[in-house]
Amino acid sequence: MASNKYEEIVQAAVELFEKKGYHATSVQDIADAVGLQKGSLYHYISGKEDLLLGLAQRAITEFNQRMERILSSERSAQDKMKEALSMHLELITHDVQLSTVLLRESVALGERPQQVVKEATDLYLDLWTRLLAEGIEAGEFRPGNPRMTALAILGACNWVFRWYQEDGTLRSQAIADIYADLFFDGIKK
Amino acid sequence: MASNKYEEIVQAAVELFEKKGYHATSVQDIADAVGLQKGSLYHYISGKEDLLLGLAQRAITEFNQRMERILSSERSAQDKMKEALSMHLELITHDVQLSTVLLRESVALGERPQQVVKEATDLYLDLWTRLLAEGIEAGEFRPGNPRMTALAILGACNWVFRWYQEDGTLRSQAIADIYADLFFDGIKK
Repeated sequence: MASNKYEEIVQAAVELFEKKGYHATSVQDIADAVGLQKGSLYHYISGKEDLLLGLAQRAITEFNQRMERILSSERSAQDKMKEALSMHLELITHDVQLSTVLLRESVALGERPQQVVKEATDLYLDLWTRLLAEGIEAGEFRPGNPRMTALAILGACNWVFRWYQEDGTLRSQAIADIYADLFFDGIKK
Repeated sequence: MASNKYEEIVQAAVELFEKKGYHATSVQDIADAVGLQKGSLYHYISGKEDLLLGLAQRAITEFNQRMERILSSERSAQDKMKEALSMHLELITHDVQLSTVLLRESVALGERPQQVVKEATDLYLDLWTRLLAEGIEAGEFRPGNPRMTALAILGACNWVFRWYQEDGTLRSQAIADIYADLFFDGIKK
């Protein structure tokens, strides 16, 4: 039961952080949202920052684990990248509110928790860089700067949280297909 | 002289919004930063939101004007796009603090000013979409979804504010060249 209440608190925090921003959200706001006294809320969390760090870590770990699984599978680099684009866009669009908190609000963390998040996102960038380097090595991709290419692709994919409409008709797989076509073959005729 | 003081206020606000976030910055903080009494500050600005809206509008207008100039020039779509990538990345990296406020904090504006910013950024997206459509029409670019392509390119370019180091060795033109190569020809061999 305790963990269900914790999940309820996390969900309320995500909603508040997304709507009002992390700084403008108070622990009292979160307590009110889940119908607890502020004192009781502290049985579940040690504070607002702890909450944001926890949900950011959990989300990024999901990205990293899924990317590691894709990387270790037996497929061409091109197929892995298609899968990675689908995975990333599915996670970003599945819960836009969480993505927004992750991508917009996690910079509000203090120095030490910020560092924890940075290490996790750096790992994710490394995994994408490795995939691109693998494709170059295998002769599937043109030689280039895999890290910069990874930054460009992740930038394009992350930015989706800013314009994606959850009630829109464009599914994440449709975006993944269009982006794969763009990144594989470019726009030039 | 009054306009110099206004510029000083804008600059102080950009620094504070970037460091502490818009919500956590008070009018008192801004007054302190420029050595004015809060009452005197109100001779220059009508409030914090007015300040953020003003600087966002000015920045986006710069992007729009430069993009309109590029679009109306007599060049191939490919050359226009190279120029547009350079322009966008130069503006983003020239003042990363301002870019951060623009891209991260302007979502903190209330509904009406938010709408003003949205109209200006929608215009910018339209200009990019028009450039891509022009290239398809001219047979330079492959048929596709110019709006989605514009969103991908702008996402990749905007995201640079998150990782660009002002003291780094990578100049904005180097990023523009790498991105142009990626978007024109793709990664596939």
